[in-house]
Amino acid sequence: MTGPLEGLKVLSFCRALAGPYASMLLSDLGAEVIKIEAPERGDTTRRLEPHIKGISSYFNSINRGKKSITLNLRNEQTKKLVFELVKEVDILIENFRPLAMARLGFHYEAIREHNPKIIYASISGFGQEGPYSHRPAYDMIAQGMGGVLSITGEPGRTPVRVGYSIGDLGASMFATIAILAALHERKRSGEGQWIDTSMLDCQVALCENAFARYFATGEIPKAFGSRHPLFTPFQIFPTKDGSIILVVVNENHWEVFCKAVGKEEWINDEQFNTNKARLKNFPAHHQFMNELMRTRTTKEWFDLFDEHGVMYAPVNNIEDVAHDPHVLERDMIVEAPHPRVGNLKFVGIPMKFSRTPCRIERACPDLGEHTVEILSNLVGLSEKEIQELEKSKAI
Amino acid sequence: MTGPLEGLKVLSFCRALAGPYASMLLSDLGAEVIKIEAPERGDTTRRLEPHIKGISSYFNSINRGKKSITLNLRNEQTKKLVFELVKEVDILIENFRPLAMARLGFHYEAIREHNPKIIYASISGFGQEGPYSHRPAYDMIAQGMGGVLSITGEPGRTPVRVGYSIGDLGASMFATIAILAALHERKRSGEGQWIDTSMLDCQVALCENAFARYFATGEIPKAFGSRHPLFTPFQIFPTKDGSIILVVVNENHWEVFCKAVGKEEWINDEQFNTNKARLKNFPAHHQFMNELMRTRTTKEWFDLFDEHGVMYAPVNNIEDVAHDPHVLERDMIVEAPHPRVGNLKFVGIPMKFSRTPCRIERACPDLGEHTVEILSNLVGLSEKEIQELEKSKAI
Repeated sequence: MTGPLEGLKVLSFCRALAGPYASMLLSDLGAEVIKIEAPERGDTTRRLEPHIKGISSYFNSINRGKKSITLNLRNEQTKKLVFELVKEVDILIENFRPLAMARLGFHYEAIREHNPKIIYASISGFGQEGPYSHRPAYDMIAQGMGGVLSITGEPGRTPVRVGYSIGDLGASMFATIAILAALHERKRSGEGQWIDTSMLDCQVALCENAFARYFATGEIPKAFGSRHPLFTPFQIFPTKDGSIILVVVNENHWEVFCKAVGKEEWINDEQFNTNKARLKNFPAHHQFMNELMRTRTTKEWFDLFDEHGVMYAPVNNIEDVAHDPHVLERDMIVEAPHPRVGNLKFVGIPMKFSRTPCRIERACPDLGEHTVEILSNLVGLSEKEIQELEKSKAI
Repeated sequence: MTGPLEGLKVLSFCRALAGPYASMLLSDLGAEVIKIEAPERGDTTRRLEPHIKGISSYFNSINRGKKSITLNLRNEQTKKLVFELVKEVDILIENFRPLAMARLGFHYEAIREHNPKIIYASISGFGQEGPYSHRPAYDMIAQGMGGVLSITGEPGRTPVRVGYSIGDLGASMFATIAILAALHERKRSGEGQWIDTSMLDCQVALCENAFARYFATGEIPKAFGSRHPLFTPFQIFPTKDGSIILVVVNENHWEVFCKAVGKEEWINDEQFNTNKARLKNFPAHHQFMNELMRTRTTKEWFDLFDEHGVMYAPVNNIEDVAHDPHVLERDMIVEAPHPRVGNLKFVGIPMKFSRTPCRIERACPDLGEHTVEILSNLVGLSEKEIQELEKSKAI
């Protein structure tokens, strides 16, 4: 591996999304991630559609670069192996429901006895403590309970889901930040610790601005379609043949826009001349804007706005993004080899380091692909011992 | 401060959102963050509405716990002070447009001469390199160009904005992960490095599952309203008096749901008995589900589903979340003192550490509140030297 975390080892008791995405981030950064999976079945997301050359695209996307070891965690022999593995790693990540690791005998205190320096990160729906801690959670539950759904959608209509699973991914990112912060602290204290991250907590954290507005005014923030809550016009407008994002966040932007579209009279019109006025007179203003923006095609607006320095952006679909020259030049669409099916495509790593650049070296592992390697190299088992474990279905 | 990053020092050339949120995360984790602001004006977000007791709620929310020092960065005397400060810190974060720091004389190579161990993190709209790197960006531009808007909204209608500014916050989180990874690497190499994070790259990264589906099938992922793209029913349904999120991700869930609502006949109905069948027959299925879910109030569904173990969640607004007993017990709504106006409310820190817990100790700083403290303690200027800088409007 390459990257700033080269040399670190991570043991990942993770399945589905929030845990695997966190350990993927560590793998992207150069850590060696050992993913523990159930023999025969493996991570359930291995079966999620669509498949590409027999590989689940869902599983592949978030398990790239990792090593897979199969362990039957209910087997007493395997439990001993887990404690041997724990001694060799820096970080443990798990995203079972609270108490599941304890029931397996792998709660923090038990793991810590075998490696007091280990950083043990738990990611769950609601956290290790609190009245809902026992409840299961999925992305949409965290989005709904944390508040983001209530501010996402069109006014007066049913809210819509944030298009990616930010309920999971938000928790993955906060957990990764916490793990790396604990790693820094460990250098000083020589001790590891237990990190508790929950999907719901992370959603509350990400809604910070909506809460800040609510704390200040007591008004409940609402969904505004594609509008920014504080500025206007700052939203998507339909054009003659598609759509465009127009961005006006100060009066200089407004003046440039008015000149570009030949509406100089709006610059000093008291109804529209300040952001405050435009917000106050939104319905009237919006009707004028909507009519105006439908008079040209998206490409015509792009050209006019380029000429005048008006800020705008396209609404790209996933195919547009995958072919965008800037995105490609930034290595944000890349390929890495799978052990059986050749190269597979991935989104790239958005953290660019000047001295220790990261690289995705492998696609997702086959189930148990690294079981023998890890048990012999890391735990020191003999070929015969491994064969016996196989025979007893422990691995 | 308390937290795992206690003892670390951060110099923050940040304004608006992406930079300040990243340095806020480091402050939350215990680092001392010194925020450089322009004399008199300060960060423009200090003037964003709404205000609470004269403090911008927007600014306060993402600048909690930091120290504010005013420096006129175009003044030659001040430039020397910056290089003195740079020697005393571990991390520098800036979110100007590319080349702005270079124009001030503060590009990475110049800073590094004064502190080769510094971790210098740049956050920008499009990154330091690539054809769009010179373009300005706002959250909505990153959301639009990165693909998330194209998968967020109702089918056939204009996309909607993700309710929080994930275009900014996503970049903040990736930058923070990168900074902490570089900090780990520095322990081994003794060297810092330059980190380049862009809002657009981070959006592409977060859209991983949509890209994975596109790479596998060539089909362009679409917006599905509140529906999950892979499972159904897994969405918001209107009820007699409100709405509810219903979650069915496997056939066991489906059977439990059918029994709870008295629709046992659906369990073996070939149109609906598997997720694949339900996705295929979505329009018919959706009509039945919609009619069914409107027959009871939200509270009645909650009670029935609790009784039967059906997975569901409420669609909470921000006020609901702010009063949720679980959220409160998890310390996700907290208070911290402001130097002038007393306690202000904040969303809490979603990273819970067993041994080095974090705490928000202060609200946002007043403009220049810590200028004298930092220039005398960190740079060692005398009272007289500081007074002269004040007179010449350098600070």
